[in-house]
Amino acid sequence: MPAAAVLRTRLDRARQAAAGTGLLIAPGSDLRYLLGQEGSSFERLTTLVIPADGAPALVVPKLEAPGFSAVPMSDLGVDVITWVDGDDPYLLVADRLGKPDRLAVSDFTPALHVLAIRDALPAAEQVLAGPIVRELRMRKDAAEVEALRQAGAAIDRVHARVGEWLRAGRTEAEVGADIAAAIVEEGHAAADFVIVGSGPNSASPHHSLSDRVIEAGDMVVVDIGGPVAEGYNSDSTRTYAVGEPRDADAVTTYEVLRLAQQAAVDAVRPGVTAESVDAAAREVITEAGFGEFFIHRTGHGIGLDVHEHPYIVSGNKLVLEPGMAFSIEPGIYQAGRWGARIEDIVIVTDTGVESVNQRPHELAILPG
Amino acid sequence: MPAAAVLRTRLDRARQAAAGTGLLIAPGSDLRYLLGQEGSSFERLTTLVIPADGAPALVVPKLEAPGFSAVPMSDLGVDVITWVDGDDPYLLVADRLGKPDRLAVSDFTPALHVLAIRDALPAAEQVLAGPIVRELRMRKDAAEVEALRQAGAAIDRVHARVGEWLRAGRTEAEVGADIAAAIVEEGHAAADFVIVGSGPNSASPHHSLSDRVIEAGDMVVVDIGGPVAEGYNSDSTRTYAVGEPRDADAVTTYEVLRLAQQAAVDAVRPGVTAESVDAAAREVITEAGFGEFFIHRTGHGIGLDVHEHPYIVSGNKLVLEPGMAFSIEPGIYQAGRWGARIEDIVIVTDTGVESVNQRPHELAILPG
Repeated sequence: MPAAAVLRTRLDRARQAAAGTGLLIAPGSDLRYLLGQEGSSFERLTTLVIPADGAPALVVPKLEAPGFSAVPMSDLGVDVITWVDGDDPYLLVADRLGKPDRLAVSDFTPALHVLAIRDALPAAEQVLAGPIVRELRMRKDAAEVEALRQAGAAIDRVHARVGEWLRAGRTEAEVGADIAAAIVEEGHAAADFVIVGSGPNSASPHHSLSDRVIEAGDMVVVDIGGPVAEGYNSDSTRTYAVGEPRDADAVTTYEVLRLAQQAAVDAVRPGVTAESVDAAAREVITEAGFGEFFIHRTGHGIGLDVHEHPYIVSGNKLVLEPGMAFSIEPGIYQAGRWGARIEDIVIVTDTGVESVNQRPHELAILPG
Repeated sequence: MPAAAVLRTRLDRARQAAAGTGLLIAPGSDLRYLLGQEGSSFERLTTLVIPADGAPALVVPKLEAPGFSAVPMSDLGVDVITWVDGDDPYLLVADRLGKPDRLAVSDFTPALHVLAIRDALPAAEQVLAGPIVRELRMRKDAAEVEALRQAGAAIDRVHARVGEWLRAGRTEAEVGADIAAAIVEEGHAAADFVIVGSGPNSASPHHSLSDRVIEAGDMVVVDIGGPVAEGYNSDSTRTYAVGEPRDADAVTTYEVLRLAQQAAVDAVRPGVTAESVDAAAREVITEAGFGEFFIHRTGHGIGLDVHEHPYIVSGNKLVLEPGMAFSIEPGIYQAGRWGARIEDIVIVTDTGVESVNQRPHELAILPG
């Protein structure tokens, strides 16, 4: 858990960023960022209340309060208000907030609570807290950057071992189970996601795992990650070939992808826009004639969430600053045949870019 | 996955129950109930749109559409509308809905989407879809009841083996890891939750696992469950003593708890209210002088979610009907010393009640 002084600064900055708007922070990564504990989202309301004036409070079911016992509430100046079944927790929230004109709710607050709070505070216009909290969370401090480096090194160690498990005759699910175990062995707190997309499945970007038996000649997309103890995530993709690829175009097209990924990384520095980084990758792929097969954005921010701001996507004119961390992961997908993706996590430095992932970018051809 | 005819009937009944209100169903158990696939909730919008008039549609990011390939969309009369980064998915939803006065959003839709849909359809009053869909989901059909029976038998097999792992000198986390593996071995698709609350931790109802070393004389609450392949969940709690309990009152108080749990089960039949079942347990505990130590409701519905309606709680005047399934799980918690809970899942039958859990209710005293 971050030091109390760090958390206290974050709470103060969140209130300042809210600029007179009350803030309600539901369980999840925003709560972990501000209190050091993620909490659990159930049908019973748990929320951090940050009024425009006055002390913040955690409204929490009495039976879930022990989950926050490690948080230095009094050092943070946060009151704890517990409630039991039969109480109306939304009235407790409304009492603490006063009569705000605007109220920001965190992005993943369930509708169940959003609409109940609307009814308890009908005069408050509801907006999202995401744009407020993201201004803090997008700019990682030194400890956060170090946690991302550790996560990157841990997932690199897993990719370095993929050849131990990935071979013809095994199913994606079998390979995925070995990788999941290695994600934990190599220093993560848990395996959050394991994609092993083989053969035609490699052309489906969000394919997870299946019972398909891997065959010689398959292209295999391996996209894996998870959080380290501090909660910061890894996320790295490499594409492997099991023996020589059966589709001759896979090897030449992969080279286009490799150059596109490198072009995007090279485009990252303070002062450029997020969309310009997307354009750098897209231009290489489009000029080579494969633009229609690159069907997603170039990247997403990463930190306590695997997907967070900034998004590296056309239309995002956000200007990059030191401390911003995101993936660079273009892909080319030939439906029904093969696909490929290369993904590193990069961090904007004072003068350029640092990649937390160091595995080679060349197509890794494993023994068939 | 349920047969297409079953899903089609559910979709028709959901539309009828909505009575002129448009329905938006986000990824999660409501979507699994209606389409047979749960989907994944990310920052990109996926939602099933059920307009008051006209054909339903699944609005889904193009790269997540393959996750729904097993759903017989054309048999169900559901159109698939894909979108890519840069499109406005909320306008696609608004177009399909027409101009509704009221719009019901599923309970766990993230605020991110709730507020964007509000902005895309400012004239539509937003309400929760939960109360509409729950009218269907609360009344389990024969296949759902059978899946709950299988889940109950599977978790009973795990409780039967707890003595293999639970003993003095091991940590809660070590015991929990063994139990998690056994939950899968004994027939679940995954372990969803494992609570091993030992000694003073047994007095914290939502304690999960810790590195506390279990000692002779501890009371240990073991509350475990997970989904079977069909998605229906188990959830069963037994309290174990590691050797003779060090607190002499634990044994006598446990007997009060056992009688309270039995009284609540005996109170279940069609035609009685949910709150009367809660009262049956609470009365036994209160009359014995322990009312203040029973700090939560008596139970929660269960099915595709571990917690769903009906809730067995004071104030819930819902009249029980055949096919309703819920937990009966009173507890008594002596903070700092010991706690105990007994939990079975029961189903309302045409004439009374069936328990899907069959493990003995007596305090299980293991070798110290």
